[in-house]
Amino acid sequence: MHSSRHLSPGDTIGILGGGQLGRMLAMAAARLGLRSHVFSPEPNAPAAQVATASITAAFEDTAALDTFARCVNVVTFEFENVPVETVAYLARLRPVHPGPAALDVAQDRLSEKNFLSRLGIATAPYREVNAAEQIPEALESVGRPAVLKTRRFGYDGKGQARVTREADILPAWEQIGGQPAILEGFINFSRELSVVAARGQDGRTACYDLVENRHENHILARTLAPARASEEQTGKARTIAETVLTALDYVGVLAVELFECPDGALLVNEIAPRVHNSGHWTMDACAVSQFEQHVRAVAGWPLGNPVRHSDAIMENLLGRQAAAWAAYLGQPDCVLHLYGKSAMRAGRKMGHVTHIYTKGKRPEEKDARRTVDAATQRTGR
Amino acid sequence: MHSSRHLSPGDTIGILGGGQLGRMLAMAAARLGLRSHVFSPEPNAPAAQVATASITAAFEDTAALDTFARCVNVVTFEFENVPVETVAYLARLRPVHPGPAALDVAQDRLSEKNFLSRLGIATAPYREVNAAEQIPEALESVGRPAVLKTRRFGYDGKGQARVTREADILPAWEQIGGQPAILEGFINFSRELSVVAARGQDGRTACYDLVENRHENHILARTLAPARASEEQTGKARTIAETVLTALDYVGVLAVELFECPDGALLVNEIAPRVHNSGHWTMDACAVSQFEQHVRAVAGWPLGNPVRHSDAIMENLLGRQAAAWAAYLGQPDCVLHLYGKSAMRAGRKMGHVTHIYTKGKRPEEKDARRTVDAATQRTGR
Repeated sequence: MHSSRHLSPGDTIGILGGGQLGRMLAMAAARLGLRSHVFSPEPNAPAAQVATASITAAFEDTAALDTFARCVNVVTFEFENVPVETVAYLARLRPVHPGPAALDVAQDRLSEKNFLSRLGIATAPYREVNAAEQIPEALESVGRPAVLKTRRFGYDGKGQARVTREADILPAWEQIGGQPAILEGFINFSRELSVVAARGQDGRTACYDLVENRHENHILARTLAPARASEEQTGKARTIAETVLTALDYVGVLAVELFECPDGALLVNEIAPRVHNSGHWTMDACAVSQFEQHVRAVAGWPLGNPVRHSDAIMENLLGRQAAAWAAYLGQPDCVLHLYGKSAMRAGRKMGHVTHIYTKGKRPEEKDARRTVDAATQRTGR
Repeated sequence: MHSSRHLSPGDTIGILGGGQLGRMLAMAAARLGLRSHVFSPEPNAPAAQVATASITAAFEDTAALDTFARCVNVVTFEFENVPVETVAYLARLRPVHPGPAALDVAQDRLSEKNFLSRLGIATAPYREVNAAEQIPEALESVGRPAVLKTRRFGYDGKGQARVTREADILPAWEQIGGQPAILEGFINFSRELSVVAARGQDGRTACYDLVENRHENHILARTLAPARASEEQTGKARTIAETVLTALDYVGVLAVELFECPDGALLVNEIAPRVHNSGHWTMDACAVSQFEQHVRAVAGWPLGNPVRHSDAIMENLLGRQAAAWAAYLGQPDCVLHLYGKSAMRAGRKMGHVTHIYTKGKRPEEKDARRTVDAATQRTGR
């Protein structure tokens, strides 16, 4: 296997991680005539079901990593918590995109915040916290209420605890397991927005439309594309994404999660160095999806045009919500995606649906919800 | 493995044949959370690269067919020339959609023409021919020029020979290998059109837009969706498709190839009991593609809405044309599909591209061609 910077059809993309993001990457690669090889610690992973080949092994298993590297032309990953050592090991054998710098920033909330601050990109006020005794001073600095967040391995609201009064400090510190953390000032945001963007090996960038996200229990429930936003906001979001991509010398797709303050200003909440749940709508409302875009970038191919041909509402199917799959099949202009997972655990991402609308004709969110609920009740099993 | 009429996510569709149609079926199944198992006589088949599992064996290998049947919940096929015996054998073990009646009609041009005639559907005039001596009388009946076609195993212009004068008769008979045949009156058609339609297990039908096809060297080069056509023509095409689907008690997707006569009348050229090259545009211009539609039908699920959200021109990439893949990547609103085939043999279907346009904004065909050619020359490798 060669390891050229530019892949040809028939070449193989190695994907670290076997979840739904890897699955959708593998399918995008297949449509472009590329093969995929999935490396996953879990057997029968969603991505392995559709990949050309797969390996089930631990990320620390260097013999398995050697085999994997021999089978692929380039390596990418579908989630940011793959061990840095694994990526570093593979990077000596094959090109890895995005590179270790992006992982470094994304795996550590403190590095991420420092990185953004150095670029002049606004975030919530934050302070490093390595012991409970440092929290009172940090609280003075960032203001109340605040949120204590572990520096590493937090996602979907895990590893977080609210701190308002002094009495919250010790319980919060215990709740996050007494790990290195940051204390963040609480942002009283009006909306959560995000932007998914990509950078190719030629340094060009491409940015999808700014979208609006609704979270429930700290998990993404729904994305509205495009966001209702001013030109200033969409321009600002694009500039942030492009600045981050360029500063990281990034190759691939990246998501920037944003908070909109009541005055309309945008703060960066976090960066995800990968394809992102809030970009799933692009599969059905754009000619080139975020998955194809990522594949193009890591393959050394030109990026595609990120323009949307339709408006969309993407809804996640979490846990038992996926049991209503048949109801969605019966709805017009609704595209169903299921991830091949068998156990419907609470909150588990089982699939998603995209409702697509002629541009400018997307109904109000509450009306869209009403239609969906009615259909689900009428035809659900 | 159960063999219920209605599949659930996680169940497996068995696909006979491993080409690009099977590949795109397997990918559509995967998006819906279904697994696919490909049975193909060829190793490393395009469909096997993306299927959950595959078997490489001859269609006559009953032990392999037994294993295949045990692994799947339902069986379908991606091309109409799979042996009837194979399908009949599997039909005793698992539901097979579409059923043997459709294969029977589609594998034999005489059965097909007789079937259509019984339904009152217009075709070219035809006569059965089992010996060279029968050709002169048949020629009188169908008129000159005429085309001699083998009853079985003809595709992309293979197994056909033109007959105008008496002197053509023996060479034509030899050219088609002296097999049972039909002689068809030559239709001086103005355009070739087609319609792709589906029927679910509940008997409901769904019909995609009538499209226009351009053939070069008897192979589909380009499909324009929708066709420029009168309301009468689109209604007529839909009625023909629905009549055929219902008469065959059909389950799945089927294509009807049509000739438009200079007076605007439509004749059926042939029926393909499967997803069809002239339906590939639906992948990028409809919420529900022909592949998903076929999967829904064979899974016993409701059909999707076949409405198109964009206009499209689909171009096949034949043989060396696929070498220009990189040029297509650089074009906006152009979706590239490659089939994972390594050898670029002349005329071999290596992939296709879909150019998508806002509805009503599709350029004239010659202008679209000019843009494509320019891009291919500019950025081609």
